Amino acid sequence: MPTITIGELGEFGLIERLTARLPQGPAVALGPGDDAAVIAAPDGRVVATSDLLVEGRHFRRDWSGPYDIGRKAAAQNLADVAAMGARPTALLLGLAAPADTEVAWVLELADGLREECGPVGASVAGGDVVRAPQVVLAVTALGDLGGGPPLTRSGARPGDVVAVRGRLGFASAGLELLTRGIDGPAELLDAHRRPRPPYEAGPQARALGATALVDVSDGLVQDLGHIAAASGVRVELDGAALPVPESFGPNGLRHVLTGGDDHAFAGTFPPEVALPPEWSVVGRVTAGGPAGVLVDGRPPGAGGWDHFRS
Amino acid sequence: MPTITIGELGEFGLIERLTARLPQGPAVALGPGDDAAVIAAPDGRVVATSDLLVEGRHFRRDWSGPYDIGRKAAAQNLADVAAMGARPTALLLGLAAPADTEVAWVLELADGLREECGPVGASVAGGDVVRAPQVVLAVTALGDLGGGPPLTRSGARPGDVVAVRGRLGFASAGLELLTRGIDGPAELLDAHRRPRPPYEAGPQARALGATALVDVSDGLVQDLGHIAAASGVRVELDGAALPVPESFGPNGLRHVLTGGDDHAFAGTFPPEVALPPEWSVVGRVTAGGPAGVLVDGRPPGAGGWDHFRS
Repeated sequence: MPTITIGELGEFGLIERLTARLPQGPAVALGPGDDAAVIAAPDGRVVATSDLLVEGRHFRRDWSGPYDIGRKAAAQNLADVAAMGARPTALLLGLAAPADTEVAWVLELADGLREECGPVGASVAGGDVVRAPQVVLAVTALGDLGGGPPLTRSGARPGDVVAVRGRLGFASAGLELLTRGIDGPAELLDAHRRPRPPYEAGPQARALGATALVDVSDGLVQDLGHIAAASGVRVELDGAALPVPESFGPNGLRHVLTGGDDHAFAGTFPPEVALPPEWSVVGRVTAGGPAGVLVDGRPPGAGGWDHFRS
Repeated sequence: MPTITIGELGEFGLIERLTARLPQGPAVALGPGDDAAVIAAPDGRVVATSDLLVEGRHFRRDWSGPYDIGRKAAAQNLADVAAMGARPTALLLGLAAPADTEVAWVLELADGLREECGPVGASVAGGDVVRAPQVVLAVTALGDLGGGPPLTRSGARPGDVVAVRGRLGFASAGLELLTRGIDGPAELLDAHRRPRPPYEAGPQARALGATALVDVSDGLVQDLGHIAAASGVRVELDGAALPVPESFGPNGLRHVLTGGDDHAFAGTFPPEVALPPEWSVVGRVTAGGPAGVLVDGRPPGAGGWDHFRS
């Protein structure tokens, strides 16, 4: 099959092919093809977030195929919307790419975006395509709060329990394998290539009465640190409550505590909340000392946590 | 004064400096610092658009200072929102930049974004900062329709008049001067560096009963061509109605017809509409022949328009 590049196809041809690949979801009142898209915002407010993914820094084309890169780019933005307690409605895709990029590569990227969005009811409603020396993806995600308050980082209170829904450390352990050129276990490599955020955790946490929520994109300790700082509290994690799969190898606990990109959700809940089994209690919120995160009573990085800041 | 780079300051330090520089407007319910921003969408729908600007392709750091690049990046997205008949509410900024970029450069860019947004009631409500080999800006703009229908490209009808509000060709004439190394006239160089879209034209056109509207970002003929195609009509421009300033030089009419980046607004209106003086009638909509744009009855590119596709 002859390959064709996006430089040969041209901007408008590429947009046409992309648009045909991206059916519109229920929230899209006006999709691609005008000066801007129009998206339903029934709540009267819209949740909005935007991330850049740069080739070589956030993904490598030799480690991940375009479909997985699309899934991942969508996932990290959809997870940010869910972490506000909202439901995603639409994505906008900005794609910068070299002229010699194969059209097939871009279309598979779009497939990945579409299939990550579909199950949550969102779709790619617009965007922009430009030429650049390297691939850069700019993804914006929008969402709807459905009448409730946004679930911010600043509401944690002493006495709350800290709970997590989703996987921790899998993507990081997979990245370490790729970096070291080790081919397997597939579960870990796949976790790096294609995160599986439990998006439902966001609206669920709000319905349960969570006081704060983040999606774990930079690592459990760092992201709970944002809650601690914004809420003016201390988060005390219980190391024994954090399972470390044997497949993670000798750096297992480090992956669990500092590994990003799994997009689990970590939240704080009043102690009387009956948490469903998909949430694991991993610590508690206290008022003692300066705001921050402790693991088994010690600051991470001290004592046994030498490798922490690597 | 010693310079400091964004690599030295770090991601979180840079975000803190940026956030301090970007006060939030009236539509922002929750600004930077959480997983996502929350923006008012009182209409129950939100207008959303996103553009990428790549260094070397959309701007040159030796031709434009960071403040002007910020103004321009904001302007082209705010104009897309206005072209739907909406009022802008917020921007999200994705900034990719080399680690050796000076912090001052980024802060001046933020100043430009802020000052372009302020007069229309919008503000920079969130975003992302990442490292990359070259500067890439990803700007998303959101807006509110205020209860009316979006002003799309597909509503033009035979018998409508075609009218323009804003400058045509100034940015293109300025770019030609910069490309040829000619230092002046300042009015043209400034027009390239800092477009001045008459944002009010969008809501005004809708209130006047416009049937279609675009912002002129790729050139009058090309952008009216989008209206012609989407509406299934012919747009017939009257060359004599398009003033060509003498300062544009020998390629004057080409700049007016094909020059982008001024972000004027071009719309179609029922013939009975009494257009205010800030709108210039430049042609009419007809049903004859295949959809497209004619200038003085001829296809642009034919006859005297040799340089058209340059």
